[in-house]
Amino acid sequence: MSVNKIVLIGAGRVATQLGKALKAQDKSIVQVYSRTKESAERLAFQLGSTAATNLAKIDRHADLYLISVSDDAIGQIAESLRLEGKIVVHTSGSVTMDALKMVTNHYGVFYPLNTFSKTKAIDLASTPICIEAADRNTEKQLLELGSKISGDVRLINSQQRTMIHIAAVFACNFTNFMFVNAEEILKKADVSFDILMPLIAETVDKLKNISPEEAQTGPALRNDMKILEKHLELLKADKTKMLTYKMLSDQINDLFNSK
Amino acid sequence: MSVNKIVLIGAGRVATQLGKALKAQDKSIVQVYSRTKESAERLAFQLGSTAATNLAKIDRHADLYLISVSDDAIGQIAESLRLEGKIVVHTSGSVTMDALKMVTNHYGVFYPLNTFSKTKAIDLASTPICIEAADRNTEKQLLELGSKISGDVRLINSQQRTMIHIAAVFACNFTNFMFVNAEEILKKADVSFDILMPLIAETVDKLKNISPEEAQTGPALRNDMKILEKHLELLKADKTKMLTYKMLSDQINDLFNSK
Repeated sequence: MSVNKIVLIGAGRVATQLGKALKAQDKSIVQVYSRTKESAERLAFQLGSTAATNLAKIDRHADLYLISVSDDAIGQIAESLRLEGKIVVHTSGSVTMDALKMVTNHYGVFYPLNTFSKTKAIDLASTPICIEAADRNTEKQLLELGSKISGDVRLINSQQRTMIHIAAVFACNFTNFMFVNAEEILKKADVSFDILMPLIAETVDKLKNISPEEAQTGPALRNDMKILEKHLELLKADKTKMLTYKMLSDQINDLFNSK
Repeated sequence: MSVNKIVLIGAGRVATQLGKALKAQDKSIVQVYSRTKESAERLAFQLGSTAATNLAKIDRHADLYLISVSDDAIGQIAESLRLEGKIVVHTSGSVTMDALKMVTNHYGVFYPLNTFSKTKAIDLASTPICIEAADRNTEKQLLELGSKISGDVRLINSQQRTMIHIAAVFACNFTNFMFVNAEEILKKADVSFDILMPLIAETVDKLKNISPEEAQTGPALRNDMKILEKHLELLKADKTKMLTYKMLSDQINDLFNSK
């Protein structure tokens, strides 16, 4: 028996994209719960489902309950939900699987590793789905369900998932912040940010063939003191950027040139 | 009259890719100079050209001399080269145009903004070519030549080019260093770096529609103290990464949440 009827608990970015992808694979989204009536009804309408705003009214005849809410709200929901015999998962990168152990015996995690926007749809088919489950049958069901919507489904335990989330902060959030810095520097020179797009695309494209460590380039790697000093001097008016430039350059130099 | 005969001074990554692209547009690479005989001969062979290792033997009948060597070497070459009446340019992001003013009256810069690998060819057609010239006719010739090999040719002065180079250090070198950090964190958790590739692709893909400032996400932006403290605690064994995480999170918080 495989998962067919699904209740979505949450109606945010992740719930929306997972719900749409699951429906496209002929899964039945029997109910959408959200504390906010408008959100529940909007997503329920998009998925041909029904809306609920009261946890006591959750449909108890589904195969899977997908909790996709903010990290803090997972605990609150787990406290008031008892779904003995049902499969219940959350979609968080940071919350341990055990947060759901009072809800059912068949708990787990179904974590799609990507950055979800409000308006832009992501390519879910290439997005890694990280699966963890409390028992073998739940694991099997989640792997099967994951493989319907993504070509990259992996077994990842709670400890690994936490470290993946930290790595993702570096690779996505901090990386974007480097772009924010670049944008501000260019703005002052009256140059549009789009001039960097081919460079950024190539920086990422390189990683198809070589590791980040092998791909490192730049004045700090070459320990080009003339350029480093010139850049620090030009950043003097913006102390924060100067310190960032200095700290990251020192770290690159320490990591690569002391080997 | 447009540029047809070109002498390449330098045989490194940039000279190689520009030489190939120019030859593909029916420009004649009449000579390749490099201090290293092997390098000069290798590239000359690839371009159906002749090799030189002595600056005194430079062919004096070309239309354009493209100096594509390390920043420090540009000054040395400029000192021993006199090419009155010829167009002479360098391809550096950091060296001012004036470095060439003793060589000829028709000097300029032809800077392709990208990251060049030893083995991997880049997409030069989408790479911005930053042009600067000492006189109008040289500017016209360089714009014309640039537009043969790229769809994105821009007039950029020396001051702007320096700031673009600093922005590129953030957007390429520091960004790659964030990937190096992520790779090390994942390695300790026994997870392969490729799990982050779809997230990284999406992080960059977003910038087609919104600015880096609008694209910022993550625990620091949300000022999610619970996650921030958990991540710092887990990074405690690696002081450098912990400090980087703390500093960049504080900066994101300062920039976005104090507005």
